[in-house]
Amino acid sequence: MTLDIQRAGQIDQASLFHPFTWVEDLKREGPNVITEGKGVRVKDIHGNEYLDGMAGLWCVNLGYGCQEVVDAIAAQSERLSFFHAFNGMSTDVVIECADELLKRAPVPMSRVFFGASGSDANETQIKLIWYYNNLLGRPKKKKIIARWNAYHGSGVLTSSLTGLPGMHNLFDLPIGPILHVTAPHHYRKAAEGQSEREFSRALAAELEELIAREGADTIAAFFAEPVMGAGGLIAPPEGYFEEIVPILRRHDILLVLDEVVSGFGRLGTYWGSQTINVEPDLITAAKGVTSGYFPMSACFISPKLWEVFEAEAPRAGVFAHGYTYSAHPVGAAAALAALKAIDDKKVVENVAEVGPYLHQAMRNAFADDPIVGEIRGIGLMIGIELVKNKATKEPFPASDRVGRRVLQAAAQKGLITRALGDTLVFAPPLVINKSEIDELVQKFKAAVDAVRPELG
Amino acid sequence: MTLDIQRAGQIDQASLFHPFTWVEDLKREGPNVITEGKGVRVKDIHGNEYLDGMAGLWCVNLGYGCQEVVDAIAAQSERLSFFHAFNGMSTDVVIECADELLKRAPVPMSRVFFGASGSDANETQIKLIWYYNNLLGRPKKKKIIARWNAYHGSGVLTSSLTGLPGMHNLFDLPIGPILHVTAPHHYRKAAEGQSEREFSRALAAELEELIAREGADTIAAFFAEPVMGAGGLIAPPEGYFEEIVPILRRHDILLVLDEVVSGFGRLGTYWGSQTINVEPDLITAAKGVTSGYFPMSACFISPKLWEVFEAEAPRAGVFAHGYTYSAHPVGAAAALAALKAIDDKKVVENVAEVGPYLHQAMRNAFADDPIVGEIRGIGLMIGIELVKNKATKEPFPASDRVGRRVLQAAAQKGLITRALGDTLVFAPPLVINKSEIDELVQKFKAAVDAVRPELG
Ligand SMILES: Cc1ncc(COP(=O)(O)O)c(C=O)c1O
Ligand SMILES: Cc1ncc(COP(=O)(O)O)c(C=O)c1O
Repeated sequence: MTLDIQRAGQIDQASLFHPFTWVEDLKREGPNVITEGKGVRVKDIHGNEYLDGMAGLWCVNLGYGCQEVVDAIAAQSERLSFFHAFNGMSTDVVIECADELLKRAPVPMSRVFFGASGSDANETQIKLIWYYNNLLGRPKKKKIIARWNAYHGSGVLTSSLTGLPGMHNLFDLPIGPILHVTAPHHYRKAAEGQSEREFSRALAAELEELIAREGADTIAAFFAEPVMGAGGLIAPPEGYFEEIVPILRRHDILLVLDEVVSGFGRLGTYWGSQTINVEPDLITAAKGVTSGYFPMSACFISPKLWEVFEAEAPRAGVFAHGYTYSAHPVGAAAALAALKAIDDKKVVENVAEVGPYLHQAMRNAFADDPIVGEIRGIGLMIGIELVKNKATKEPFPASDRVGRRVLQAAAQKGLITRALGDTLVFAPPLVINKSEIDELVQKFKAAVDAVRPELG
Repeated sequence: MTLDIQRAGQIDQASLFHPFTWVEDLKREGPNVITEGKGVRVKDIHGNEYLDGMAGLWCVNLGYGCQEVVDAIAAQSERLSFFHAFNGMSTDVVIECADELLKRAPVPMSRVFFGASGSDANETQIKLIWYYNNLLGRPKKKKIIARWNAYHGSGVLTSSLTGLPGMHNLFDLPIGPILHVTAPHHYRKAAEGQSEREFSRALAAELEELIAREGADTIAAFFAEPVMGAGGLIAPPEGYFEEIVPILRRHDILLVLDEVVSGFGRLGTYWGSQTINVEPDLITAAKGVTSGYFPMSACFISPKLWEVFEAEAPRAGVFAHGYTYSAHPVGAAAALAALKAIDDKKVVENVAEVGPYLHQAMRNAFADDPIVGEIRGIGLMIGIELVKNKATKEPFPASDRVGRRVLQAAAQKGLITRALGDTLVFAPPLVINKSEIDELVQKFKAAVDAVRPELG
């Protein structure tokens, strides 16, 4: 390390344009500079240690410094540091990786298309969907339905799919044939006294109406995260997908499951689709496929689409889409090692056990807390929504930035969380154990208690 | 390696959806599976060796297995295998990398925004451009001009910028406020007898007319590669940027230079902008920043934009854009090592010397060849366009796939090239030496000679 502590903060502020950051905050507070990581913990430039309750950004599922993955990356970088898969080229590790991924798919899938990020994969999905309907001679069937509060990425079209007004307003988005429906958030969106099942039926009715209004022959696909992540950590209410999916099937609307966060065990099943019991036509994976060690994404393409691509190939010609890193051999080697480690370390089994333990521990600590409105999520995805008034669900004024203050108090105590407004979320490495979860909950409780007196 | 040769091809065809590949070709021929690389050479699964005339995909500038970069990746993966830069977080290596990049910028630049691909970076540029004009209260100034034959990526909006009809037709693109102007390809687009300078003036007039027709208050930016790559390897004719740029300035239209290929030495100067003598407002870099060893991109943001972002930050709030891998520490470590290697190995100086040598050798071999229509490019970017009739420039029938046949003949002789239609292109590693260039030209000549008798 050649940077000293003082200069690091100054150079950061003079050189780096931070994603999802308020320049005013950065100016006032400077960056928090992380320098090392091992297991579930990271260290900052001052030597402070943190339990990383967010696994980086919902991705370091195997924890930091997982030696098997590190070694695979080093060995492959040395053997073949890059190649591509354009024009029929390929590499041995990429072939193996595609094969291993297909073997693990939750439903039979025909092909994998690689990329380097969740965003590029969802951009690919949109293009695949349009391509598919053009090949089928359905030029009008192109609109895509996504949900408010969804997060599908930061490309121009993927931020359009994303249902967060803050990502739209100053960017002239959404653009393109994109429609949004209500987020399945019972706590915030259900009518007074409406049960979860009733709420799900109401959302299904909204979807039916939208399809009727627009015309099923104009609607190509529906995008969904099994559990919404960045948009507030929202698990589907009872019966949600059960009500929604048959409508999509009836109107021949493709279902794209965005498993960028939920794939590879986060919900306590290998795939989120298995937790929500849904069979997708397309799956988007990223993050956990390499545990974040190497940028990689994978689109899984079902026989329904692939058979059309294959049958129409003679007239369609070259499939004119792809990224330079659409099959990076080092990414494939990292993924192969990560997939093996997920199996060997029984990571999914661990989540199935410690996930409910985390939820129970959080409930024990906060169920009666007057400023905790809702505790929600599944597996190792949990959100705690803070409110001013538990009875009326009245939120704190946004300008109080209560979520952010709790996040900072947690950092003080050596815990990393993430504030989505006033919902604090955790998605720790999937290898976390019960005693680390106890520590997480206890530190989080201390952080909330530290902020509480200021909240009046 | 656990895959045997036989199974590799089968599994590839049963599992991998190849970018930019015709499924029919793949079915008939199977994949060409690369397994190892060192220096300017790679080896396939049968043990055949190739001189890689394309540096992977215009990216492995330092050659394969560059130990400094490999070691940096291994060490950083072990120390901190991932972190992010959302919400004011940072990492030491990312800070250092942003700083080193800014130090190398061709004109003073204020900030770097990271990503993982050229496509994601250009998606970022589009969003930055719209954001900038919204902050300035110019909501109508949003259209973006790109050029036919441009290649700017494969996201939905970046493939829209890209000026290749094959990437538009079956995907319903272009989408969004995008306009295309004529490619600056004198050989194919100039009028009979028009000099390069006259042709450049004609293209400037076309641009002026477009701006007048659309209204300068509706046009935000102009995207250009210094030398077009994937769209046919087209170097600007004499006076092109000299004529174009003042028009952009006069109408307050931002100039985005896409240096994904040209950055880091390919044209014999550190940046392509220095070869074409232009001062960009935004630069897109990727590929060479890590020599393709790790997916990474960087948008360079000039003071003109940054000052607006900073001044308007209080009301703009959080900059709501970013990718999970927008500041990957391992990418930063790879880039730091690559930047140092570029300096230490005097890579740019090498290109300045061997680039002209390559062009001269190619001219010596092919200048009088009856099927070579044009030899073009700058530095270590060269394209050789094959034609049926040199005098009339009549191309071969597309269905003859002459370019592809030469590519396959070259592969037979141990040389990797790339066929953009019937233009064969080379962009070898920047560390290539003269004797390797002799070998490249000689093998290419042998490939052309092998195909020649079939061309009637
Ligand atoms: C559900 C989901 N989809 C897509 C993405 C975009 O992935 P990336 O940031 O790698 O582009 C994310 C990122 O957080 C995500 O959570
Ligand atoms: C000039 C240019 N811009 C952008 C891109 C897109 O980069 P990527 O494939 O990394 O998305 C490329 C890729 O070849 C390119 O050549």
